[in-house]
Amino acid sequence: MLAYRMTTWGAPPETVAVPEPSPGPGEVLVRVAGCGLCRSDLTMRHIPAATGEALGWNMPFTLGHETAGWIADTGEPVALVSPASCGACRYCVRGQDSGCPRGLTGRGYGRDGGLAPFVLVSDRRALLPLGDLDPRHAGPLTDAGATAYHAVRRALPRVPAGGTAVVLGAGGLGAFAVQFLRVLTTARVVAVDPLPARRSFASSVGAHSAVPSLEKIKADVVLDFVGADETIAAGIAAVRTGGAYGLVGSAGGKLRGPWFSTLPRDGEVFTFQGSSIADAQDVIALAGAGLIHNQVEEFGFGEIDEAYAKLAAGSLTGRAVIVFD
Amino acid sequence: MLAYRMTTWGAPPETVAVPEPSPGPGEVLVRVAGCGLCRSDLTMRHIPAATGEALGWNMPFTLGHETAGWIADTGEPVALVSPASCGACRYCVRGQDSGCPRGLTGRGYGRDGGLAPFVLVSDRRALLPLGDLDPRHAGPLTDAGATAYHAVRRALPRVPAGGTAVVLGAGGLGAFAVQFLRVLTTARVVAVDPLPARRSFASSVGAHSAVPSLEKIKADVVLDFVGADETIAAGIAAVRTGGAYGLVGSAGGKLRGPWFSTLPRDGEVFTFQGSSIADAQDVIALAGAGLIHNQVEEFGFGEIDEAYAKLAAGSLTGRAVIVFD
Amino acid sequence: MLAYRMTTWGAPPETVAVPEPSPGPGEVLVRVAGCGLCRSDLTMRHIPAATGEALGWNMPFTLGHETAGWIADTGEPVALVSPASCGACRYCVRGQDSGCPRGLTGRGYGRDGGLAPFVLVSDRRALLPLGDLDPRHAGPLTDAGATAYHAVRRALPRVPAGGTAVVLGAGGLGAFAVQFLRVLTTARVVAVDPLPARRSFASSVGAHSAVPSLEKIKADVVLDFVGADETIAAGIAAVRTGGAYGLVGSAGGKLRGPWFSTLPRDGEVFTFQGSSIADAQDVIALAGAGLIHNQVEEFGFGEIDEAYAKLAAGSLTGRAVIVFD
Amino acid sequence: MLAYRMTTWGAPPETVAVPEPSPGPGEVLVRVAGCGLCRSDLTMRHIPAATGEALGWNMPFTLGHETAGWIADTGEPVALVSPASCGACRYCVRGQDSGCPRGLTGRGYGRDGGLAPFVLVSDRRALLPLGDLDPRHAGPLTDAGATAYHAVRRALPRVPAGGTAVVLGAGGLGAFAVQFLRVLTTARVVAVDPLPARRSFASSVGAHSAVPSLEKIKADVVLDFVGADETIAAGIAAVRTGGAYGLVGSAGGKLRGPWFSTLPRDGEVFTFQGSSIADAQDVIALAGAGLIHNQVEEFGFGEIDEAYAKLAAGSLTGRAVIVFD
Repeated sequence: MLAYRMTTWGAPPETVAVPEPSPGPGEVLVRVAGCGLCRSDLTMRHIPAATGEALGWNMPFTLGHETAGWIADTGEPVALVSPASCGACRYCVRGQDSGCPRGLTGRGYGRDGGLAPFVLVSDRRALLPLGDLDPRHAGPLTDAGATAYHAVRRALPRVPAGGTAVVLGAGGLGAFAVQFLRVLTTARVVAVDPLPARRSFASSVGAHSAVPSLEKIKADVVLDFVGADETIAAGIAAVRTGGAYGLVGSAGGKLRGPWFSTLPRDGEVFTFQGSSIADAQDVIALAGAGLIHNQVEEFGFGEIDEAYAKLAAGSLTGRAVIVFD
Repeated sequence: MLAYRMTTWGAPPETVAVPEPSPGPGEVLVRVAGCGLCRSDLTMRHIPAATGEALGWNMPFTLGHETAGWIADTGEPVALVSPASCGACRYCVRGQDSGCPRGLTGRGYGRDGGLAPFVLVSDRRALLPLGDLDPRHAGPLTDAGATAYHAVRRALPRVPAGGTAVVLGAGGLGAFAVQFLRVLTTARVVAVDPLPARRSFASSVGAHSAVPSLEKIKADVVLDFVGADETIAAGIAAVRTGGAYGLVGSAGGKLRGPWFSTLPRDGEVFTFQGSSIADAQDVIALAGAGLIHNQVEEFGFGEIDEAYAKLAAGSLTGRAVIVFD
Repeated sequence: MLAYRMTTWGAPPETVAVPEPSPGPGEVLVRVAGCGLCRSDLTMRHIPAATGEALGWNMPFTLGHETAGWIADTGEPVALVSPASCGACRYCVRGQDSGCPRGLTGRGYGRDGGLAPFVLVSDRRALLPLGDLDPRHAGPLTDAGATAYHAVRRALPRVPAGGTAVVLGAGGLGAFAVQFLRVLTTARVVAVDPLPARRSFASSVGAHSAVPSLEKIKADVVLDFVGADETIAAGIAAVRTGGAYGLVGSAGGKLRGPWFSTLPRDGEVFTFQGSSIADAQDVIALAGAGLIHNQVEEFGFGEIDEAYAKLAAGSLTGRAVIVFD
Repeated sequence: MLAYRMTTWGAPPETVAVPEPSPGPGEVLVRVAGCGLCRSDLTMRHIPAATGEALGWNMPFTLGHETAGWIADTGEPVALVSPASCGACRYCVRGQDSGCPRGLTGRGYGRDGGLAPFVLVSDRRALLPLGDLDPRHAGPLTDAGATAYHAVRRALPRVPAGGTAVVLGAGGLGAFAVQFLRVLTTARVVAVDPLPARRSFASSVGAHSAVPSLEKIKADVVLDFVGADETIAAGIAAVRTGGAYGLVGSAGGKLRGPWFSTLPRDGEVFTFQGSSIADAQDVIALAGAGLIHNQVEEFGFGEIDEAYAKLAAGSLTGRAVIVFD
């Protein structure tokens, strides 16, 4: 079969022929219906060998960590959890599997992912039944959706009845966050994005208002899906006493001010990567109940490079998914 | 090897020769060092076939669900989690594996348990490293200890600084609860038991006071390890507004009063069985740090019936463990 | 001025002339716009003197504990908190003022309430700004609304994404609970009521389904606004492992089954009366944001007896409010 | 009477004669037994008029915000809460009164404090009964003690059984934090301080170890009572995935690294000032139960300047209290 793979550290991925995988004991073969593309895929081609090896990544590996399809044997539609968390450590047995050290590798980053017609699953925790949801589109729910949900869930206790929640950056994750805040809280949800198209998108998925900058808004919770110096500074400044600022965006920003006088009093600052299996289950439940909308743009397997180019250019609305037939 | 087994529904267990188990793919062989005896073992000989089969229990099976020993291959000392929770359901991936429906069967109840020189483990979540703890005695930490811990952990948010916590019934579980309350809270801990020997035991493991009955005490939290009509009535009556009553004991009592005027206002009533893997990890950590004492009485494999007789008679102090050599 | 008052223990209230109150130091005079009627008002005429005096109630006192109006001096619209909680005890300074022993008396029960043109307020904690909400109708938000909210808030951690919540009894409080569950959770909300008119009302305020009985439904959370033997038994039986049953209704029912095998495993049972100031603030915030609907039926001061008669007969839809002009 | 007062913005305090206060309606006169000195007192003499006025501070005012004494009328021993929180706002009625905007002024900062023989109290929330505790020494419990407790309480959910908690800076607050961590958690408590005398003090109040620097330690929770660049950097680096870093110290440090890669994954960063009334109640309860030790050094009213000098020089062990007779 053809797979879209990282083959060498520091080089771009390429489409190569690989043997179709066959399941060993305890393994399940999944036929891929669709696989979402993520901005982090674009950074993998630049990771040095030393970094990748320190993370425990195998090279080569097939890209794609937003995978859904059908169990080959039964035809049951499933989405796949990507991180290879162990299931047994102090994090995993407490429902905090996004903190498991083994989760730094996963399907599509150091292990074979979903940009191929078939993928193997060796842990039944990774199989999330989709019910009536379309497996060609469901992959992004497990990553873009679940990561945004992880952040929103974390912030929930700090959103009071009729409060205000701000989402900085209304791209794929931010638009999911807007939706989760709408269905899980009674807050007024404000999306902040300099791009008019993204503000429109945020409004279309439920933001009460969508503005180009945060000035003068005070909020109970700010979720920052950008993470630049400017968004960190503006986001922290906007949080009221007792509120929360959550960093999701990986732009690498810093806070220049002194912490004691700058961080929100009695508030909370948090950052994290990824999401837990429970997060992904919840997101699928919400999508299955029709409570959130998963906006995707379809591409064929032959159009992967084009899709990544649009992703890099910021010209997608919603998530790109590569659809197999 | 000789194993102490349930062989027929409704009949007492017996010691029979069985083949030594040999591990298949993904399985781990554990050499048993010691296995605790539990009051619930005594009820298993009375379970009707229909009930056992409805729970998914296999017959025959080896008794013993408080097992510890060494991984046969490596010699690493481990305690074993008994419930066969699935690891993948909505309960398991949230750290609530004691709620997993599959956990109604387990090592020693419907599957082969620890009253035999060897036992197979097919899920690495069940292997809890013991460090320097003695595997001959550690088994009860995973069940008597973890169940008491599960109840105490649940009640913690309702124990204020310098509050009062009551433990009804100072047997094996109750004595663990006294210890957990002492190291995890700043409450004054009151043990209530009609038997003087148990009151002495409770005092020796840290109860601030040990009294024969609960009269006139008001408490933030009452944990009832008896569960009879009288302890439920007295326990509920003792809880202050906003406090908690937790039922652990299986005596089958009822509350006769009307709920609206009887249950503690703005308080909490809970019951449950068992414990989670995280609970067992925590208990082992506390024992490993020397913060709790695990009182056991040793018996040989040939003395199992005698040990159960003492258990049934209430003449043990601490937990009976069957020790292998 | 004319006030609708309890004048003798064990006797019905009557309309009598009383002096218009004049505020002393630290007191605020409020001109009443409207006052809701509550089923508990009907029970007050039957309370024995000994009970009332044990609660610290003064006799006589003006009825009415769902009061809103305008600060006489400034015209600012406010709703009034009724319970006379102290503000300083261990409950009050922790936001748990519904547990304050002094809250067993309040405006309309043992102190002068809102069924009169003017009422005095001696604690600024009791003044809740209404913004644009109509003070003629807002009174029920502070009691019927806040009590339902108190129960819903308590149950929130046990309602998973896309779960199921059941409301037993779709009268005034139940209909509020349906609305809070809709805006605060993603659960499917099922209202259960034998009366078709109430089922229609529940549907009209957002219940996903409204059925005459609970049979065969499994729920994450059951809130029982009836509290009879039958609703307690059915409600407890419906709760899944790890779920919650909350008792609000004062029908005085009991649970006949043994607790150990009947209460939801790892779940929670709670009961309580009343609500906190924070609850009332939240409810007003939600109503002010248009997120909940406060259904009332208006009566004049001369129609109080008629309104209570309709309340007793169960023939109101929503809450009766006595409107002053 | 003589009072130690701030009389002019930007100038040192001085001892001046003022009239003995006499209580108006709703006020309580307290005879001061002792008043603790705080490092923040030293900064008040440098606050510009504009800043002080923006905070709502009156000038002149008597210093001293760690006051305890006796109610003049009854002789009941009480400690006093200092912040003038309002009791009625969204923060106050939720037990989060340390977030109340009015709490930026208080007894000893913008209002008359405890460095005088008498002080007026106008809010009964501020009167904390001391029971058998000595009011000459109890003042620091309400501020140094309560602030440390506020931080520890916040971090508790992130301290696992048998975990590790680090206290950076073992001065007055840090030593309280060590003690709270010991009685409220099962963590191994590590105190870090460059000064040998402080390390000895930390060990004497229960730290499991006391070391000059944090290198190589991984912790579940780090509480930083210094707040310099170095402690922030080292503290953040020490926190494991899912842990917490709490900033209490006001040294004004910054974090130089990018947040996304530096802050603890899935962890929590928090800062705050002060403490709630509930915190102070809890600390008094713990001291009253003999669970914590309140180390003080006594000075007379004529020795205030000397005591501040020792405080500034870091040569005190425990808290300085000015004792009245």
